Amino acid sequence: MKSGSSTTDAESRVALPHKVANMASPAVSPRADAESASDRLLADLKPRQAAIDDALGVWLARVTAGGPAAVHEATAYSLFAPGKRLRPLLAVLACEAVGGTLELALPSACAVEMIHTYSLIHDDLPAMDDDDLRRGQPTCHKKFGEALAILAGDALLTGAFQVLAEGYAPKTAAVSCLELAKGAGAVGMVGGQVIDLQAEGKVGGTPPEGLAALEDLHARKTGALFRSSLRLGVFAAQAERPQGADPQALAAADEYAAAFGLLFQVTDDLLDVESTADKAGKRVGKDAARGKLTYPGLLGIEESRRRASELGQTATAAAERLGSPLLAALAQYVVQRDR
Amino acid sequence: MKSGSSTTDAESRVALPHKVANMASPAVSPRADAESASDRLLADLKPRQAAIDDALGVWLARVTAGGPAAVHEATAYSLFAPGKRLRPLLAVLACEAVGGTLELALPSACAVEMIHTYSLIHDDLPAMDDDDLRRGQPTCHKKFGEALAILAGDALLTGAFQVLAEGYAPKTAAVSCLELAKGAGAVGMVGGQVIDLQAEGKVGGTPPEGLAALEDLHARKTGALFRSSLRLGVFAAQAERPQGADPQALAAADEYAAAFGLLFQVTDDLLDVESTADKAGKRVGKDAARGKLTYPGLLGIEESRRRASELGQTATAAAERLGSPLLAALAQYVVQRDR
Repeated sequence: MKSGSSTTDAESRVALPHKVANMASPAVSPRADAESASDRLLADLKPRQAAIDDALGVWLARVTAGGPAAVHEATAYSLFAPGKRLRPLLAVLACEAVGGTLELALPSACAVEMIHTYSLIHDDLPAMDDDDLRRGQPTCHKKFGEALAILAGDALLTGAFQVLAEGYAPKTAAVSCLELAKGAGAVGMVGGQVIDLQAEGKVGGTPPEGLAALEDLHARKTGALFRSSLRLGVFAAQAERPQGADPQALAAADEYAAAFGLLFQVTDDLLDVESTADKAGKRVGKDAARGKLTYPGLLGIEESRRRASELGQTATAAAERLGSPLLAALAQYVVQRDR
Repeated sequence: MKSGSSTTDAESRVALPHKVANMASPAVSPRADAESASDRLLADLKPRQAAIDDALGVWLARVTAGGPAAVHEATAYSLFAPGKRLRPLLAVLACEAVGGTLELALPSACAVEMIHTYSLIHDDLPAMDDDDLRRGQPTCHKKFGEALAILAGDALLTGAFQVLAEGYAPKTAAVSCLELAKGAGAVGMVGGQVIDLQAEGKVGGTPPEGLAALEDLHARKTGALFRSSLRLGVFAAQAERPQGADPQALAAADEYAAAFGLLFQVTDDLLDVESTADKAGKRVGKDAARGKLTYPGLLGIEESRRRASELGQTATAAAERLGSPLLAALAQYVVQRDR
């Protein structure tokens, strides 16, 4: 799977003073409007990203303490490579939207980021996508060798469940472990990855064809973990209630996740054909080179942009039902992302 | 990690009628005594192994249903390769010893076998132990390619937590997920595998030296999952009680697991130097060829046998404290195993 951006957008953007100046300008163009909305979003996300990073450090230490140093080193290397923390942010924002706090969401946030990072480590392996560069630095196996990379991935995958089981009261822990296992497992993320490799001919079976198959692929490959991220956030806030989590909140979270996941993939595909390696922090244009099934390949660039805009609107509407202006802003931000 | 035997001992042995005849003989030699004790044990285990296999089929179908067929095919191939079901049996016997039933233990049993099988699949990969033969058949990556083997392992690892979270009430699910994550993770099984690869020079870091380091390695590499297997069995029986699981039962389970795990490894090492590939169902003599740290290599064969006998006694005593004649018999069986 691909992570999209490599640098921490929040950090790089909010550090530019001229953009802050733009925000104060009385006569702003639509483009400047979008920029200032982005700036506000990123400023709102920044303290949450910092809290997520802190919590990741604490939980990773807890999961690896007493084990061989090499495991901590390799897992920390990949976990703390510059990243947007998109999935943990989804968990945090969903939790906050339904009555929880940032603090309460952190174990969920860390668990989904550990799952995401493990999937990147394994996907980058020579037998899989065979990538040398990830998040702007050598991939885990390039740095530590294949054996340790495989095991670092295994440790992060396993550790994610430790974080949930240790970080929450039993009802929340149980429902969250179940959700994460389904989202990350054979039917969800791993299943999506298998279908993706079938598309590339690296795994036997019928390669997916057409838009429905492409969207099924991405619903699993990226969408399932987005969905789990949001659901875990809702569970963190509500699963201990006698009646459990609110079904309407979960339904809105699922709708957001489905649209956001596809939106993220369309824009990722678009970036792959439009971006430069410098911005993306990884090889670009490689999808086409591999004959990989993509939105631009299937729909063309213009129609893909239209699809992104449509998905952005769907996600925004779901975010509003969930009561989260930040999730709505995040969807709009992804529509406009350039890395 | 190595699984030891390849054929289902229980099935192959109890099918031999002359051994059943031996059991009825009035004048039995000590050797025949041991054989008839083995036969009785294996006859007792057989219906449990059958129930475990059935449950594995049901749970694997549940974990993979709706996912790509290739994931089910590859996971089922490795999960249903002939195996002793040792870890699931430990879970079942521990559960039964402390007031639970076979039925109650089955999700735990399936979860630990899924973890064990994933670890075999990943360990056999070319970047790890690079094995072509496992449980008497081509390894997962030989059969399905490396990419699918990596993902099949990931799916089984993830699925194990789904089985626990879906198979138990919340208190049991939460405490079991935590235990399994710790036992299988960076400090437990994965940590042991990293140390093992450091011993072989495949992972950087200080290679382990001496008996204490060897036993630390195995306490993690095989012992941690044995411990989790027994603990999960105790949790299945007792975790829903208001006071949770009995600390004395857990302590006896831990003692059994520690001794049984090392015992299993000593005998595995001894088989590697003494057995034939035909019996073991995998390459033998390979440990020495790789300069791997082993008991016979460190202590010699005779002293290793003495250590096995001593560990067998420790495990037997712990089994008696736990109230399980079958766990005691199992320890004795492992002391005498020839495959």
